[in-house]
Amino acid sequence: MIAEIISIGDELLNGITVNTNASFIGQQLTCAGIEVSWIETVGDDVDRLRDTLMHASKRVNIIIITGGLGPTHDDITKKVVADFFKQPLVFQPVIYQRLEAFFKSRGRTMSPLNRSQAEIPRGAEILENRLGTAPGFYLLKNRVHIFVLPGVPGEMQRMMQTSVLPKLKHIGLPGIHFLKTLHTIGISESSLNEAFITFKDMFPGVRLASLPNAQGVSLRLSMNASEKSGGKPIFKRAVEFTREAAGQYLYGEDEDTIESVVGNLLLKHNYSIAVAESCTGGLIGHRLTNISGSSQYFQCGVVTYSDWVKIDLLKVPESVIRKYGAVSKKTAIAMAKGVIHLSGADAGLSVTGIAGPTGGSKGKPVGLVYIGYIDKYHHTVEKFIFSQDRILNKMRFSGYALDLVRRMLQDST
Amino acid sequence: MIAEIISIGDELLNGITVNTNASFIGQQLTCAGIEVSWIETVGDDVDRLRDTLMHASKRVNIIIITGGLGPTHDDITKKVVADFFKQPLVFQPVIYQRLEAFFKSRGRTMSPLNRSQAEIPRGAEILENRLGTAPGFYLLKNRVHIFVLPGVPGEMQRMMQTSVLPKLKHIGLPGIHFLKTLHTIGISESSLNEAFITFKDMFPGVRLASLPNAQGVSLRLSMNASEKSGGKPIFKRAVEFTREAAGQYLYGEDEDTIESVVGNLLLKHNYSIAVAESCTGGLIGHRLTNISGSSQYFQCGVVTYSDWVKIDLLKVPESVIRKYGAVSKKTAIAMAKGVIHLSGADAGLSVTGIAGPTGGSKGKPVGLVYIGYIDKYHHTVEKFIFSQDRILNKMRFSGYALDLVRRMLQDST
Repeated sequence: MIAEIISIGDELLNGITVNTNASFIGQQLTCAGIEVSWIETVGDDVDRLRDTLMHASKRVNIIIITGGLGPTHDDITKKVVADFFKQPLVFQPVIYQRLEAFFKSRGRTMSPLNRSQAEIPRGAEILENRLGTAPGFYLLKNRVHIFVLPGVPGEMQRMMQTSVLPKLKHIGLPGIHFLKTLHTIGISESSLNEAFITFKDMFPGVRLASLPNAQGVSLRLSMNASEKSGGKPIFKRAVEFTREAAGQYLYGEDEDTIESVVGNLLLKHNYSIAVAESCTGGLIGHRLTNISGSSQYFQCGVVTYSDWVKIDLLKVPESVIRKYGAVSKKTAIAMAKGVIHLSGADAGLSVTGIAGPTGGSKGKPVGLVYIGYIDKYHHTVEKFIFSQDRILNKMRFSGYALDLVRRMLQDST
Repeated sequence: MIAEIISIGDELLNGITVNTNASFIGQQLTCAGIEVSWIETVGDDVDRLRDTLMHASKRVNIIIITGGLGPTHDDITKKVVADFFKQPLVFQPVIYQRLEAFFKSRGRTMSPLNRSQAEIPRGAEILENRLGTAPGFYLLKNRVHIFVLPGVPGEMQRMMQTSVLPKLKHIGLPGIHFLKTLHTIGISESSLNEAFITFKDMFPGVRLASLPNAQGVSLRLSMNASEKSGGKPIFKRAVEFTREAAGQYLYGEDEDTIESVVGNLLLKHNYSIAVAESCTGGLIGHRLTNISGSSQYFQCGVVTYSDWVKIDLLKVPESVIRKYGAVSKKTAIAMAKGVIHLSGADAGLSVTGIAGPTGGSKGKPVGLVYIGYIDKYHHTVEKFIFSQDRILNKMRFSGYALDLVRRMLQDST
């Protein structure tokens, strides 16, 4: 079973919208053990869409189409699909009734344009859309399974999960698919990959992908296996091997983020935390508070961009700044101490560095950062040098700062 | 002249990587007045790539290919393109010398695998890659212009701008392309669009796209016109009309962001600013400090997540919090006052609200926010109610807060 995804819309071709729908569908199908062989994007154009359908229907057996199901005249998908597969559009009273109810429940009146949304090709099965007005449909023609879904991401995602995947399962999937992602911070992609030279021979059938991002590297393991092939123990051993190879750099798995992991550790230790930021400008506080429930441990943050706010508010000794500079080990520790004193939190985290692109010097280049952390068992500073890019540096400084908290609190469990 | 973009890589099909390269290229071509008719994504597979090239070479006259130019065995692009267009690969000493110099300048030794990167199809023109090892190339075959570029975003983007677009201009573009984007905050897409019902008739040939994002709506105007067609005055009038229709909600154009606009206004007024954040957790400070040079006006930020930090640090009267609550007009003003007092900044901005998804009540629902702003001429609070989504709310709260500063400082110019 191989699949093609067809994304429809001018906004995808002219770059106004990034095609995240295709990535979502690709991920869902891959996880379900179905290979995606092509993704084709085409505009709101009858002839070009026909051409696209012609190629797809010859080369794959599953086609997932999104977009162009709205009620306006540039929404051509349904008509072109119906014509191409020679199944005339038929009015479906059941869809019409649902549409009426949908509009009524929102206190809106239904436009005559919406009537056309109650039509689907003859022989097609309705795929219900609980979040919007455009229903999808499923058609089996010449052994090709065709799914047509709206392009609104939320509606499409919901329908993939409630209609398309169950339907594909019913049709018969090739097997089960194992998937595990492990997240690291603090090790380069090439150093990390040195541990995996013999991986392919050790764990036949397990695919390993290394995915670098702004602050670290994630490792994604996947395996297609039938229920009876005995792939499960091999996959489990491969995951275990990868966990060990990642070692201290491993901070989480699958849906974990460094901020959620740190949040859980703070809850576990019953610690509150306060953050003193300089060059990260508030990003650490922002990331920590992206987690719902962070008010249980996030006490306060102070962004001290100027020297005298460090002195005045955080009581960093003026002599320390004068002697060692604002970007120094001693200042980082004094900031962490100061924010604990100011807030009464159990733990204090501080960052001082040079995000760039200006402000660097020979001894203190752009990308230099000191990260301080203090709690009743720890008192530590780390130094890193990253890149020239301001936005990337802020991401890395904040990621490494959160990771320092993670390593300190994991050690003391 | 119509173009097709071909993106190569398994990671794009299985959804691990979102295809932002194609959006970038689509945008660049559209801005240059070239229509993109298809974007096709295919994996690292010889037969499927051949199939893709076959369709593309029949239906368009410009093909831009990215990805699969690395030195390893799954990088098949060059070989397949050379085979398909029947131009054998030829070793190019000039590329090899550049590769040697590239590795030497980075203190790395060159692997024998890299030698193959010095080969390009016979008759092709080298497209130099100053940022990486994989050169691109340009080939003209059967009146189809083929550009092959690496998949690393930074390298591809640079080469699009330094090689591909100049080359296309040389080949002969269909005309000039006018483009202007206007950014708004504070008005809904549907209210904004009411002003544009007669736009099409008023400004023939000018296309208007409304692009909603997390905090506002941008309006993008574009027009294809030949040098002599006299499109320029029509386009200018259309931009002027749109500026007037957007009115007070218009905060910037093209590359402007609300944080860069606010930064420039602060510089102009010679004001320093301090920020007291609650539910935004540091995001306002983060956004302000994303602008290089923000240390000239950003004094300090305080993230007061708990009530007593508001009381202790910002001197918000305990009676105000007890009587009106932490999320109230009075608390917002007291926070702005407090952060000016604490920092000595010229202007104080404060945000207090409920980001959600929990913490709401009947009188104070999730999504409620108060934004306070004080300087020597202004003393104001605004109230908004947004959505249920925590991350979206943080984006909107911070965007509307920055926009309040913008409106206040623009008024006093």
